[in-house]
Amino acid sequence: MKSISEVVPHMAYGGDYNPEQWSEDVWLEDAKLMQKAGINLVSVGIFSWAVIEREEDVFDFGWLDKIMDILHEHGVGVCLATATASTPAWLSKKYPDSIAVGRNKNPYNFGSRQHYSPNSPSYKKAIKKLVTKLAERYKDHPALKLWHINNEYGCHVSECFSEHSEAAFRDWLKNRYETIDELNARWGTNFWSQRYNNWEEIQLPVSLPTFYNPGQMLDYKRFMNDALFNLYKIEKSILREITPEVPVFTNFMYEFKPLDYFKWADELDVVTWDSYPDPREGIPFAHAMQHDIMRSLKQGQPFLLMEQVSSQVNWRDINLTKDPGVMRLWSYSTVGRGGDGIMFFQWRQGWAGAEKFHGGMVPHSNDEESRVYREIKQLGNELKKLDSLVGATTPAKIAIIFDWENWWAVELEGKPHNNLDYVRRVQTYYKELYERNIAVDFVRAGDDLSKYEIVVAPMIYMIKPGEAENLEQFVSDGGTLLVSFFSGIVDENDRIHLGGYPAPLRKLLGISVEEFVPYAENGNNEIIFNGQTATCSMWTDIIRLEGAKAIATYKGGWYKGKPAATVHNFGDGKAVYVGTEPESKYVGQLLEELLQEKTIEAPLQAPPNVEVLQRNTNDAKHLIIVNHNTTEVNLTLPDELQYTNLLTGETITSTITIEGVGVAVLRY
Amino acid sequence: MKSISEVVPHMAYGGDYNPEQWSEDVWLEDAKLMQKAGINLVSVGIFSWAVIEREEDVFDFGWLDKIMDILHEHGVGVCLATATASTPAWLSKKYPDSIAVGRNKNPYNFGSRQHYSPNSPSYKKAIKKLVTKLAERYKDHPALKLWHINNEYGCHVSECFSEHSEAAFRDWLKNRYETIDELNARWGTNFWSQRYNNWEEIQLPVSLPTFYNPGQMLDYKRFMNDALFNLYKIEKSILREITPEVPVFTNFMYEFKPLDYFKWADELDVVTWDSYPDPREGIPFAHAMQHDIMRSLKQGQPFLLMEQVSSQVNWRDINLTKDPGVMRLWSYSTVGRGGDGIMFFQWRQGWAGAEKFHGGMVPHSNDEESRVYREIKQLGNELKKLDSLVGATTPAKIAIIFDWENWWAVELEGKPHNNLDYVRRVQTYYKELYERNIAVDFVRAGDDLSKYEIVVAPMIYMIKPGEAENLEQFVSDGGTLLVSFFSGIVDENDRIHLGGYPAPLRKLLGISVEEFVPYAENGNNEIIFNGQTATCSMWTDIIRLEGAKAIATYKGGWYKGKPAATVHNFGDGKAVYVGTEPESKYVGQLLEELLQEKTIEAPLQAPPNVEVLQRNTNDAKHLIIVNHNTTEVNLTLPDELQYTNLLTGETITSTITIEGVGVAVLRY
Amino acid sequence: MKSISEVVPHMAYGGDYNPEQWSEDVWLEDAKLMQKAGINLVSVGIFSWAVIEREEDVFDFGWLDKIMDILHEHGVGVCLATATASTPAWLSKKYPDSIAVGRNKNPYNFGSRQHYSPNSPSYKKAIKKLVTKLAERYKDHPALKLWHINNEYGCHVSECFSEHSEAAFRDWLKNRYETIDELNARWGTNFWSQRYNNWEEIQLPVSLPTFYNPGQMLDYKRFMNDALFNLYKIEKSILREITPEVPVFTNFMYEFKPLDYFKWADELDVVTWDSYPDPREGIPFAHAMQHDIMRSLKQGQPFLLMEQVSSQVNWRDINLTKDPGVMRLWSYSTVGRGGDGIMFFQWRQGWAGAEKFHGGMVPHSNDEESRVYREIKQLGNELKKLDSLVGATTPAKIAIIFDWENWWAVELEGKPHNNLDYVRRVQTYYKELYERNIAVDFVRAGDDLSKYEIVVAPMIYMIKPGEAENLEQFVSDGGTLLVSFFSGIVDENDRIHLGGYPAPLRKLLGISVEEFVPYAENGNNEIIFNGQTATCSMWTDIIRLEGAKAIATYKGGWYKGKPAATVHNFGDGKAVYVGTEPESKYVGQLLEELLQEKTIEAPLQAPPNVEVLQRNTNDAKHLIIVNHNTTEVNLTLPDELQYTNLLTGETITSTITIEGVGVAVLRY
Repeated sequence: MKSISEVVPHMAYGGDYNPEQWSEDVWLEDAKLMQKAGINLVSVGIFSWAVIEREEDVFDFGWLDKIMDILHEHGVGVCLATATASTPAWLSKKYPDSIAVGRNKNPYNFGSRQHYSPNSPSYKKAIKKLVTKLAERYKDHPALKLWHINNEYGCHVSECFSEHSEAAFRDWLKNRYETIDELNARWGTNFWSQRYNNWEEIQLPVSLPTFYNPGQMLDYKRFMNDALFNLYKIEKSILREITPEVPVFTNFMYEFKPLDYFKWADELDVVTWDSYPDPREGIPFAHAMQHDIMRSLKQGQPFLLMEQVSSQVNWRDINLTKDPGVMRLWSYSTVGRGGDGIMFFQWRQGWAGAEKFHGGMVPHSNDEESRVYREIKQLGNELKKLDSLVGATTPAKIAIIFDWENWWAVELEGKPHNNLDYVRRVQTYYKELYERNIAVDFVRAGDDLSKYEIVVAPMIYMIKPGEAENLEQFVSDGGTLLVSFFSGIVDENDRIHLGGYPAPLRKLLGISVEEFVPYAENGNNEIIFNGQTATCSMWTDIIRLEGAKAIATYKGGWYKGKPAATVHNFGDGKAVYVGTEPESKYVGQLLEELLQEKTIEAPLQAPPNVEVLQRNTNDAKHLIIVNHNTTEVNLTLPDELQYTNLLTGETITSTITIEGVGVAVLRY
Repeated sequence: MKSISEVVPHMAYGGDYNPEQWSEDVWLEDAKLMQKAGINLVSVGIFSWAVIEREEDVFDFGWLDKIMDILHEHGVGVCLATATASTPAWLSKKYPDSIAVGRNKNPYNFGSRQHYSPNSPSYKKAIKKLVTKLAERYKDHPALKLWHINNEYGCHVSECFSEHSEAAFRDWLKNRYETIDELNARWGTNFWSQRYNNWEEIQLPVSLPTFYNPGQMLDYKRFMNDALFNLYKIEKSILREITPEVPVFTNFMYEFKPLDYFKWADELDVVTWDSYPDPREGIPFAHAMQHDIMRSLKQGQPFLLMEQVSSQVNWRDINLTKDPGVMRLWSYSTVGRGGDGIMFFQWRQGWAGAEKFHGGMVPHSNDEESRVYREIKQLGNELKKLDSLVGATTPAKIAIIFDWENWWAVELEGKPHNNLDYVRRVQTYYKELYERNIAVDFVRAGDDLSKYEIVVAPMIYMIKPGEAENLEQFVSDGGTLLVSFFSGIVDENDRIHLGGYPAPLRKLLGISVEEFVPYAENGNNEIIFNGQTATCSMWTDIIRLEGAKAIATYKGGWYKGKPAATVHNFGDGKAVYVGTEPESKYVGQLLEELLQEKTIEAPLQAPPNVEVLQRNTNDAKHLIIVNHNTTEVNLTLPDELQYTNLLTGETITSTITIEGVGVAVLRY
Repeated sequence: MKSISEVVPHMAYGGDYNPEQWSEDVWLEDAKLMQKAGINLVSVGIFSWAVIEREEDVFDFGWLDKIMDILHEHGVGVCLATATASTPAWLSKKYPDSIAVGRNKNPYNFGSRQHYSPNSPSYKKAIKKLVTKLAERYKDHPALKLWHINNEYGCHVSECFSEHSEAAFRDWLKNRYETIDELNARWGTNFWSQRYNNWEEIQLPVSLPTFYNPGQMLDYKRFMNDALFNLYKIEKSILREITPEVPVFTNFMYEFKPLDYFKWADELDVVTWDSYPDPREGIPFAHAMQHDIMRSLKQGQPFLLMEQVSSQVNWRDINLTKDPGVMRLWSYSTVGRGGDGIMFFQWRQGWAGAEKFHGGMVPHSNDEESRVYREIKQLGNELKKLDSLVGATTPAKIAIIFDWENWWAVELEGKPHNNLDYVRRVQTYYKELYERNIAVDFVRAGDDLSKYEIVVAPMIYMIKPGEAENLEQFVSDGGTLLVSFFSGIVDENDRIHLGGYPAPLRKLLGISVEEFVPYAENGNNEIIFNGQTATCSMWTDIIRLEGAKAIATYKGGWYKGKPAATVHNFGDGKAVYVGTEPESKYVGQLLEELLQEKTIEAPLQAPPNVEVLQRNTNDAKHLIIVNHNTTEVNLTLPDELQYTNLLTGETITSTITIEGVGVAVLRY
């Protein structure tokens, strides 16, 4: 198989292209506008099943042949979709089992999109046929660069309650647990008279009068992740067989809980994802974290941004535009965090259907002088100058543990506090590093941690076999581990680790936790540290020291004076524990201390709201500087170095001035 | 057919009358209390199917015969209902298809009301039989004045998802589009793989995993409107055949989106509607607009208020009473806007069932000295003095475009801003005219506009064939047209009018709109005009001038200085465009300028919260003056005229004093 | 049958015990920890059906035999559950009719708990078999003290919409009304064409397009109450037959609307209930009222607290802990209000399943030094000193009317104000008495009232046959009755009592009410009384005096000066009416006046937030004093008396000091 930089040896630039929605006279115009805008890659056919296989076994490739030829002739590569994301009307009508069933036990109607059941036999049969046909047809076409499998798996339908799904769930459980007694033990079914005598008694966890069995719900989430993943692998195996050289992927989504992307990424040749920050939120810090996660899914390999919007989406309640320059700004932030391509949904804004007010690279007016097209063209022509960055990696000495199964488990109902929101708890720590321009990778607790100096583990509620040992090894070898509250509580089946919280981490952290004390919605407390105080809220662990020492204590409450944060020397390293949710002031100072101990620094000192991102290749280092301020900023560069701004060609020394809403890409 | 003023040659006064809920000894008492209160018309039988047709084909007219006779003997005419609004238990049990199916695909249970499916064959068969029987029975009864068909069509059930409804939808589509290819083109089904090979593949737009197809949803709304309308026409044709002289109608509702009342009104002999302002909202300005719409549905013909409440309804969360005098006040506002009758739901407050706390004209206590009955009696005896007003019309030189299909389309999901709220946007302009006592008609964009000097078109998002030309003609002939933002965007299938927004109005308005910039919930900006500023919010069109000139510009934002409002001379007239939602200050001044140019004035100058409404016949002019203030007001009258206050018989010149919560009806 | 104090002659102390969730090696450890903590009673088997009857007719009593023996050997009595609260998987699979059907007409899935249909024939057959087996097995076991039937009837599933439930509803109606004509009259079905020809036409009141028939809905609530009650009686009759000496009960819940506990209590040998105040609410005043209600259900007989939590539940959104000492404090408040036992859910905190974060008496850590276990142990050993209190009763001279059917009726939809909230309206009066430490019983309007001096009847909207006469008798005999607004409105079928509100109470109260005037959400008014003013809100009755005199009048509104509260001398007593919802200031003063007239006083004068509760036996009087303040308080005792503090053994005279969050139990 070819590497991504072989098939697209530049910054990829383009978008989803749906020519079937337009008459043929528009196609050539499209190709010319693409050329002007510097486009080198488009995704074709994502929702084209109904116009490719017009009836069962009746295929029409004529239009697609033409498009592939036109694009190739204009120097635009094709990321060809397998078109399986939305099933056509004839399939839905002829094979009702192909339709997913919702929580109210009604099958979906035809008329929207992506309504297929992940466990439908007829859907699986149909995609095998379609993907085989497509691959055979275009395996030798020179425009074919990448295979885009399906689209945003799990979007809208990540659960299904059909009979086929129920049967598949039972099979999945049989495969996982082998005996019904083992399942009973793992799910703790002696509780609430839930014991099963045989597999057929198991139903899907839906339509229940009160709290579900958490073990069952957790396995249902695993099962649905696997069911969707299985669809991906079915398509991939066909494509790999017919076109062994062409990389394949599917596109991921923002903070998407249903799919364990770490597990999926192993089967993707390149990670791609779709990023739609809401302009109402200001600087898209949460999306920056997603970029960093996406880069981490394949251990630092660059990703492609598969979708963003030129200015304005249409699926929020209110859809703000991006101000002039902002699309460019956010694109460079993406590149700086490991993006080797910037793609858009979509090329030409649609004129009918549910997304006609979703912005395109070419607006309804078809106007080359429109703000949108001018910005698209500017960026496309700039990215041509960045070949030096293709394949470059991000050097990070600090990692944050992020785990989908932990996410699922900690947000199951019935907790001491039921608005814990795992991602926000991770961001409590990420945000401080983000604002200091410290590069961060994301890892799982069982991964190889040896390349990191510091590992942060926010709320690792679930500790799976081997993970505690791995963390102990990391600290023992000299690493610094920071763990936050409500960690180490359950096993992989959401059963309590008995023996005093946080049982598997108790030795490493040198503490035990006797009680969990949540705060009411508006409740809070203060912690005292280094002669200062900081507010804390949401949660307090009542900590007993068992070798650790307190580094912060509570100012109020019946547990006044008890430890709020602790540190424990363990082997050659240290394990820090924060038993509450402190405000930024404390988290920032704590992280700064840990960073100083390990002499981890930002690439440059920068004023607020300026990202400084590093990407290195064997040949060169680069700094991508992104100024989110609307006024210009000046950054001081190390005296000893000389930089080239790849966007302007200028040589830079000592200081660099970046205009408001401006960027620089410095090679050195 | 007789005209309404032939069958009821006075102000109609009365209410719904449900004697079947009371023992016979109450009936004579009712008739006497009606006489005292000046009642001349009551609606009988609206929910009486189960006591008229007690089992299939078993009819009992005995009680109704008696009631008709009693009422006639006491000088009370009958507006006889066809009793089809709520199907009896035996029908629901015997013909399950008669029951509508809700969004969860469950049929409704029996036990409430109006649960029939508009597309049910057995319902249609049953109403034909019932209506025929009723018409035959009472065709020669002297009490019969009007036919009240069904009741509030679409209330509760304006959608149905039964198999019969699905089949009927397919038939409706076949009839509209003839070929499946045409439907595919109109709905843009090449989007999201939605192409249909045949009609049978089409399902109802419900139970979808994400956004629906807007063309399909729009047609579903048209279809359901037509399905209900068809029920009305079935009944009407039977009644017209058997009682060709008796006028027929059904009663309309407040801001009722599902039914295109303009379309329906053509088949009504008189428009009637049910008005229930919430006293919490203060002066019922929004209901005033509905009165004006109702009057406009049949090109100015007076309407009947078919239902209001004496003091207090029971179906809101909290049901405030009307303060003393307020029921009378609002009744005169109704008369002043074209009402030729004031009817109530209901005569005697019920003692059992879901509406027993809904006020009646006679309260539970049966007390003639109760506030409620005294106010009812006062009004009834006053209205007897207003024969002069019967049939009088409202002279209006300004019209607002209001279009149900536009309402449906602009509020479909997936817009740049999804709380646009068409009716409120219309009210932005209506309210300024209302507060200035400028009479307003409502029209559709394709109607004859030649009698108006000014036409206001708020957010006419959908422009159907011929409408742009009609508006051009109006302006070209000297008219003033005012169009507000997000207009001229789509065709009748909700597909973009390509060619630069607002394509079909671009020439007329002399502008193009490059982008839509919505504001966040609390976001806003300012516009500069005539050396003043005003706040704007919700939306900004980025306007390019193409012949028009700016009359207001933006003070802030990246589009600072760009046009916020424009004017374009076109033919002998002018076309004004307002590309944002400005505060009242701006809208008021703009409208005042346009009114001055056309020398359109209020009938009298009046202090705030005083309505001055004009109704003219060939014989006389009238001013209805309604003082919503709780303190008295004085109005100056033209010196040259002499007026008679019809309520007091006084002759008035120069000035008139109206007490707080008081009214006057001046004939001159 | 033995009395409760025979089978448990001490304060009962213990909790739910679920040994089947733990391996056998834990069982002996449990027994020893129970002994240390002073535990004398545990509830076993509540959710054990699936491990007792493992398949249909396959019983396994081995584990339960062992547990019963171990507990007996350690001096712990068993409150043995009938295990019918949650049906096992095999039953759900084999007998689908055993599953309840929800409002969306879908049956529940297996996988949670308590999903059975109360009207299922197969469920009834299965529980008869199980209960018979259990009773036969353990009828002679010395550990068996009490039968715990089922668990929290109606929790989660108090409605069912299955075909069996519909058929049972029809049978219930036939039984109640005998003829369909009678049903039609009671439900007022001439309204909205709802008349029935036969029973088969009746459906359950669900899935309706708009307002239901209130008579039908009220009967549905009665029917479901009876359906669940019938299940209880089926089990009870088996147990009484096999173990005639063993008392039986089921456990009640907090503010539980679906079940008429007054009706149920007649069939319980002891009232027990489950109390879970939310620490966010501060002092659990609303739970104090529930204690008083529970004590009143069997005319003053002591109740058992069957469940509370040691510190923290897990089923709220945020689950706060009880601060140190608070569990003990609230336990004494329970004892003071008539509790003869304090039990917990549950003994050992679970390690798997939906409730694993619900606190236990023994925490996950199994730590005897944990705060939770230490507090449990302290309380258990204290309660041993309170044998003197067992069976003691509460002397109350004032009663509040509380009626479940009234609750159901007044909260049906379609009222003048639809947030009336019956329980809160009762609390308006209860709270003033609670804060003054005046003992209150709860009664029904038809009960014997002769032992009370004052009866308060907040919002007795429904007056059933005989109730008005009973209240008249009470007042006539010298009692003081206080009635609040919206009383006396409907009969037992929710039909208006015609004749002028409040018709059945009009003579007694000496008033009539002409109109109901609700206030908007934030609306209010003032009333004038005794030269003072107080705010009132929610509602105003427009009152006419018919013999009564005004004791408060309105300051504003169009009804300014009209009576807001009245008093009417009637026979030897007086009837007070409050026609609005006044603030505490007025209610408190009014009640104080009425108390003074009857010389009703608190047992001791106490500072705020201190409960002083009296319980007497033939042998002695007791004061239970509960200090909710966190600082100490001093109370003055009558000079003539000498008290023994049962907790400390001290003799007390003149004054007593109670520490913050402290208690005292004084015998005298």
